Amino acid sequence: MSSLFLKLEKEVGKLAPKLRQWRRIFHQYPETGWCEYITTYTIYQQLKTLSSFTLYFGEEVTASSARMGLPAEEEERHFFQRAKAFGVPGEFLAKITGGRTGLVAVIDTMRPGKHLTLRFDIDALPICESSHPDHLPVKQRFASKHQGTMHACGHDGHTAVGIGVAYLLDKFRDELSGKVTLIFQPAEEGSRGAKAIVEKGWLEGVDLFACGHIGISSQPVGTIAAATNRMLATTKMDVVFSGKAAHAGINPHEGKNALLAAAAAALHLHSIPSRPEGMTRLNVGTLTAGRGRNIVPGNAKLEMETRGETAALNQCVVDDAIRMIEAAGQLYDVKTGITVVGEGISCCCDESWAAAISSICRGSKFCHEIIDCLSFGGSEDASLMMKRVQEQGGKATYMVFGSPLLFSHHHERFDFSEETLTVATAVFSRIAFREYAPR
Amino acid sequence: MSSLFLKLEKEVGKLAPKLRQWRRIFHQYPETGWCEYITTYTIYQQLKTLSSFTLYFGEEVTASSARMGLPAEEEERHFFQRAKAFGVPGEFLAKITGGRTGLVAVIDTMRPGKHLTLRFDIDALPICESSHPDHLPVKQRFASKHQGTMHACGHDGHTAVGIGVAYLLDKFRDELSGKVTLIFQPAEEGSRGAKAIVEKGWLEGVDLFACGHIGISSQPVGTIAAATNRMLATTKMDVVFSGKAAHAGINPHEGKNALLAAAAAALHLHSIPSRPEGMTRLNVGTLTAGRGRNIVPGNAKLEMETRGETAALNQCVVDDAIRMIEAAGQLYDVKTGITVVGEGISCCCDESWAAAISSICRGSKFCHEIIDCLSFGGSEDASLMMKRVQEQGGKATYMVFGSPLLFSHHHERFDFSEETLTVATAVFSRIAFREYAPR
Amino acid sequence: MSSLFLKLEKEVGKLAPKLRQWRRIFHQYPETGWCEYITTYTIYQQLKTLSSFTLYFGEEVTASSARMGLPAEEEERHFFQRAKAFGVPGEFLAKITGGRTGLVAVIDTMRPGKHLTLRFDIDALPICESSHPDHLPVKQRFASKHQGTMHACGHDGHTAVGIGVAYLLDKFRDELSGKVTLIFQPAEEGSRGAKAIVEKGWLEGVDLFACGHIGISSQPVGTIAAATNRMLATTKMDVVFSGKAAHAGINPHEGKNALLAAAAAALHLHSIPSRPEGMTRLNVGTLTAGRGRNIVPGNAKLEMETRGETAALNQCVVDDAIRMIEAAGQLYDVKTGITVVGEGISCCCDESWAAAISSICRGSKFCHEIIDCLSFGGSEDASLMMKRVQEQGGKATYMVFGSPLLFSHHHERFDFSEETLTVATAVFSRIAFREYAPR
Amino acid sequence: MSSLFLKLEKEVGKLAPKLRQWRRIFHQYPETGWCEYITTYTIYQQLKTLSSFTLYFGEEVTASSARMGLPAEEEERHFFQRAKAFGVPGEFLAKITGGRTGLVAVIDTMRPGKHLTLRFDIDALPICESSHPDHLPVKQRFASKHQGTMHACGHDGHTAVGIGVAYLLDKFRDELSGKVTLIFQPAEEGSRGAKAIVEKGWLEGVDLFACGHIGISSQPVGTIAAATNRMLATTKMDVVFSGKAAHAGINPHEGKNALLAAAAAALHLHSIPSRPEGMTRLNVGTLTAGRGRNIVPGNAKLEMETRGETAALNQCVVDDAIRMIEAAGQLYDVKTGITVVGEGISCCCDESWAAAISSICRGSKFCHEIIDCLSFGGSEDASLMMKRVQEQGGKATYMVFGSPLLFSHHHERFDFSEETLTVATAVFSRIAFREYAPR
Repeated sequence: MSSLFLKLEKEVGKLAPKLRQWRRIFHQYPETGWCEYITTYTIYQQLKTLSSFTLYFGEEVTASSARMGLPAEEEERHFFQRAKAFGVPGEFLAKITGGRTGLVAVIDTMRPGKHLTLRFDIDALPICESSHPDHLPVKQRFASKHQGTMHACGHDGHTAVGIGVAYLLDKFRDELSGKVTLIFQPAEEGSRGAKAIVEKGWLEGVDLFACGHIGISSQPVGTIAAATNRMLATTKMDVVFSGKAAHAGINPHEGKNALLAAAAAALHLHSIPSRPEGMTRLNVGTLTAGRGRNIVPGNAKLEMETRGETAALNQCVVDDAIRMIEAAGQLYDVKTGITVVGEGISCCCDESWAAAISSICRGSKFCHEIIDCLSFGGSEDASLMMKRVQEQGGKATYMVFGSPLLFSHHHERFDFSEETLTVATAVFSRIAFREYAPR
Repeated sequence: MSSLFLKLEKEVGKLAPKLRQWRRIFHQYPETGWCEYITTYTIYQQLKTLSSFTLYFGEEVTASSARMGLPAEEEERHFFQRAKAFGVPGEFLAKITGGRTGLVAVIDTMRPGKHLTLRFDIDALPICESSHPDHLPVKQRFASKHQGTMHACGHDGHTAVGIGVAYLLDKFRDELSGKVTLIFQPAEEGSRGAKAIVEKGWLEGVDLFACGHIGISSQPVGTIAAATNRMLATTKMDVVFSGKAAHAGINPHEGKNALLAAAAAALHLHSIPSRPEGMTRLNVGTLTAGRGRNIVPGNAKLEMETRGETAALNQCVVDDAIRMIEAAGQLYDVKTGITVVGEGISCCCDESWAAAISSICRGSKFCHEIIDCLSFGGSEDASLMMKRVQEQGGKATYMVFGSPLLFSHHHERFDFSEETLTVATAVFSRIAFREYAPR
Repeated sequence: MSSLFLKLEKEVGKLAPKLRQWRRIFHQYPETGWCEYITTYTIYQQLKTLSSFTLYFGEEVTASSARMGLPAEEEERHFFQRAKAFGVPGEFLAKITGGRTGLVAVIDTMRPGKHLTLRFDIDALPICESSHPDHLPVKQRFASKHQGTMHACGHDGHTAVGIGVAYLLDKFRDELSGKVTLIFQPAEEGSRGAKAIVEKGWLEGVDLFACGHIGISSQPVGTIAAATNRMLATTKMDVVFSGKAAHAGINPHEGKNALLAAAAAALHLHSIPSRPEGMTRLNVGTLTAGRGRNIVPGNAKLEMETRGETAALNQCVVDDAIRMIEAAGQLYDVKTGITVVGEGISCCCDESWAAAISSICRGSKFCHEIIDCLSFGGSEDASLMMKRVQEQGGKATYMVFGSPLLFSHHHERFDFSEETLTVATAVFSRIAFREYAPR
Repeated sequence: MSSLFLKLEKEVGKLAPKLRQWRRIFHQYPETGWCEYITTYTIYQQLKTLSSFTLYFGEEVTASSARMGLPAEEEERHFFQRAKAFGVPGEFLAKITGGRTGLVAVIDTMRPGKHLTLRFDIDALPICESSHPDHLPVKQRFASKHQGTMHACGHDGHTAVGIGVAYLLDKFRDELSGKVTLIFQPAEEGSRGAKAIVEKGWLEGVDLFACGHIGISSQPVGTIAAATNRMLATTKMDVVFSGKAAHAGINPHEGKNALLAAAAAALHLHSIPSRPEGMTRLNVGTLTAGRGRNIVPGNAKLEMETRGETAALNQCVVDDAIRMIEAAGQLYDVKTGITVVGEGISCCCDESWAAAISSICRGSKFCHEIIDCLSFGGSEDASLMMKRVQEQGGKATYMVFGSPLLFSHHHERFDFSEETLTVATAVFSRIAFREYAPR
């Protein structure tokens, strides 16, 4: 191994307690998409001490019109108050509120070399974390302090890894060449944030792109996949049903029941047949309807998503879904409105780039087994970044960092092995210093 | 007409502007059941100046364990903050929070005579008031200042009438005999409040009971019904579905879909057949399910109600509903929990008492037409009070005060003619001074 | 009592065994609407010996284009073969096949007097009769010999009564005045036959019309209602769903699932709310879909009906139903076709005519109690005949002949007390000889 | 090529008109499973002239208790009458009625060699054949003469090929070694017939087994696949719902609606989520419910099937389905009964045997392209035969004979290229004479 790689291995090992500590802070303060105030501020606090980086945040990160699925005012206010209570300075907050979270950190060596971009997603989920005594965050007292919000998808780990990578790049900056951009992306859940970063231009001129996910398929710690396939194209839709409220006892027949229309839509949508050409998915994730027990419900809303192994398969499901939603409205004489609030595409990792990463990782004590390609089965809006890079002739991959999982992603007891943080940090930093890899 | 009745007619006429003013205040500050802080305080403010009355509020009004359908903490906090902002003193607020709203005002002449109890309900509905320029409260600037809450059932009028009646009783207190109790009842919507008032003992020893509703069937102003029939027995239920959340893309088959169970319940419940023996009703008023778009929804909740022309008919619907709800849970392998949060019984007005009221009202310039009995078709927890009075040999009735209606009860543009306030005040005060009625 | 009425009472008593015997023959050979071959022939056989009657059958009974809900070829063939096996002569059969069942018998005295028309319905239901040993037709060996078809609505009794009345009219023909028409109507179930009889002109110039039903509300034998109210307007519809079949294993996504569309229609139709203005009903009586287990079902059919206390209420349900059926088709991308195959209107019995009948029946030992009016709650296409008579200034009524019922109409164990046959025969014949009634 | 193979090629070419003619006869007289009377008789007629074969039919073919999904009496009677009308002698018919169709033909050379078994399935589907003028069977006048039944899966071709193979084996019987059994299997559709043949012992001691299907994935004529994978395990179930009928107008509330229970089951069953481990399928192929339009339907029946890429996956779907069906019954207070009427397992073709077949077919002018393995995606009860052979150490494969398809299997316009008949005959006969294949 090259002497730099030896030093890197050592430094990654030393970083382990820090990685765990960062991860646990993020875990305690989970924030949903476009509301990552404490998260963005904490990243900022850690990175501003690293002199080799230029930091971009607020309006510099995302293109206004391309931000999708912005949160309701009430949700924003909620997290804003928590951020103030946490101690995020008002001045900083002012810059990132209104859907301006996330941060980009750039180190430009001015030396020849390629432009590498690494992406880390930072948002949490609207899930209420388990208080089960065996749940590690409960046992070791770093469970969510934001009741109803939880890092149940490992983005707390991703964010910690991103900071760790920044630290290592800064430390060995003199041996780095070319340019490295670290993107701390908001609002990955719901496939909402990547588009606005792409449209802001952050992927222009990027030669190499890499990102990855902790967990996925319960591999042992130290197993990494250099690429994934079966990343699903996805469409996120909000559906509004507008009927007419009425007194449920005296004149129910005067109502137009939006709750029944929404319930019918949810049930029938789930009968869209699967297809032999490849995997498709449909989920109605939320349904809210009605204002009072004794009122025929005149309003309803669904939040839903479709997925498909290819864009065409996803579109088939979208087309069926739209027809069915409109018919469900007609069933109960209720108006329907459909808004697309998020989109992810299916994409392909570059085989040669994945092979290079496999080779780069070989020999690291943190990487016990390197798999060429793993089936993903989920959706990711990193796909939009990957596509933009590939359109310009660059190469991109989406990796997986194995961790045993007792409970699956999005479960209220989801947790991963914190040793994986070290593994992922080792992989990303080796990629940045790939020139030192033995051939 | 007796000279007292002549004076009463005159005084009622003079009271008209006051009645309208009170009603419009209540209309601007609508509060849902058990959260009537501003409302209770405003009634208190008006009545405490009337020296003949003894006022009871806070824990004196309701029996703790019999209060049904108490609101969620968040709803309470919400209205509490509004009440503080309105200026309700903290000391007063402290006594009525935690489900202690409502007020009872008693005037005891110590002179022989019967004990008459009149009841006025004071709560509003979780409906967002229309901002249509033709809507009178918009036009005349007394629309709801509490976004999402609305007096869409006329209880703002009922409360104003109650205050007007108190004023007249106080004014002519020297000619009053026996004892009169005015009950300003919280949480009538959802049939939640009456039971706790009955169990506190307020209906013990009551000889005569009367209450009524503005509107109902669009009669002209001045038409009153001395009694109603077809008051529906009702059961209010909350239903919780507990399944299991899962990642909707990667492992949807591991979820247990509570949203689909709730949707199935809602749809199938509405197919319970009607019955030739009499009217029945079922309404699923609200459905909320799921926490995020890309999560198989593991939780869901319904707020629903059943009604029937008799207790037996209502029970048939309840029995069918329970079987169906449990089956809907089994469909999606989801646990179900059913809680009864409100109850109203069907009841009969006493014919002789209604006939007496007809006779008492005859000759008033405010009462153009007196109908013996009108079909109600809704539910009312005043039924519990009526039953308690009747069990002890007392007599009870439920009246209707006609008003043309452009939009029906619980509609976002519900409104009634404010002249009806005068009519209802005239009727109630005549009932109190019924001894002066010509025979 | 007049001497004629005394003779009538005696003769009715003597007729009892005959009435029972006729009824049991019809019970053993039940035939569904427009296929009443054995039934029509048996009536014909009995009546052709009564010389005072002129008999009309085949094309003389019904107007071709107004016959509704004609049966499928296979159903017709089925009953045709049974009729041949029974021994109905080919010549007779030839005249009544193709939807030409039913018979009209006219006795014209040529003496002055009114034109009275009595109607008896003759068809059975597609119900499989119970083989329970306690079921009277089983015990006494007159159960249906036509597996899958049953007289479960008492029309076997109605037909027997019609023959009994014909016999009595013939016997006392010299004391009869005016004109009497007996209509033996086919296809009452499904409200299909009356329209074609009306349009053939049989109700033109009729002054008085009466018909009735055995059973209905489990009154004791001997109780009769001279009139009914709450006869429901009704619309009978066939709904066809045309999708696309596909191999269920290899390419299910290529199918358009008509079975699911029909199932959705059935379920959602049952959630049409009831109305405070009066009773409404909807029933999806049959659903057949699909051709094989491993084929995505491309075809489906519903047979359904709506009812309403008034034509307007029925139309509300029809309108909702049509919208929902079309939406259910759209849900599964399947074409829908709706055909109206039967219609009944709501109608009113003439009070004065009912009062006259009450008075006519008084004093008969067969009539223990005479009720002015009973609630019906079902539909009847006799309503079309009644309306036609009333349009011309005539009077009409629909009576009920009480019988205790262990199982309700259309139940596989439906049965009525055969003593009711004598009661109904007494009532109809007294009506024919009403001039002899004591005033 | 060996001289025998040259002769074989020539003879197959000459056989082409005969193959087409046989196929068209079978196409005109399609018969559903266990009712293949004309079919069995026609096979018998052709084979009895081939002196080297011993023929087995009637009770010799299937084990009584293992026959699944026997048809209803009415269906049997129907096809029986057609067979009599066609001219099948009564004596022959007597042996094969009551679920005794199918035929086994054995040629035992008494020379050393392996025991080869070939299987041909002979049943048709309950599909109404298209009368479209462009549909080849219409154009060339060999469309189904059995209205409502159709060879829409190519078994008419399979049967013709089986006869062709028998002819060739007989012709070159002197060069054959070992033993060859030809199984003409009834009731493949619905996976009903194979089990009874296996249990009768026909697969005991078999060394090599081959069968195949025409069409599947629209390959060009001349393309053959020597093996398939993704053959789905399957369970066929009949579901009966027993509620209570009632008069839909007068007492609908007394009914227990089996139609709604069945409709609910059908809809909810289709929402069983797919699984990432592999393909699953569920189809409710038929639903029949109710007896009359104006009767609350008290009975309903579903014919359905589940499939899965493995037995475990299929079982997951079966388990979910059973839970849902029972819940659907409970929804409408209706009893449910579930009967398994067919079963197929997933199975694997032997690679070495498939490789041998590939090699055997190479060089034939009828086989333009030989694919090692094709994805099947359907179910087949030949899987039970294959498994039995493999359990004893024998080898088995399931082949595909390519044909362009304008419409897919089970479509009312399904048709295949008749040139494929020659291809399949060539392949099967080469397999029988495999010793002459060039190495």
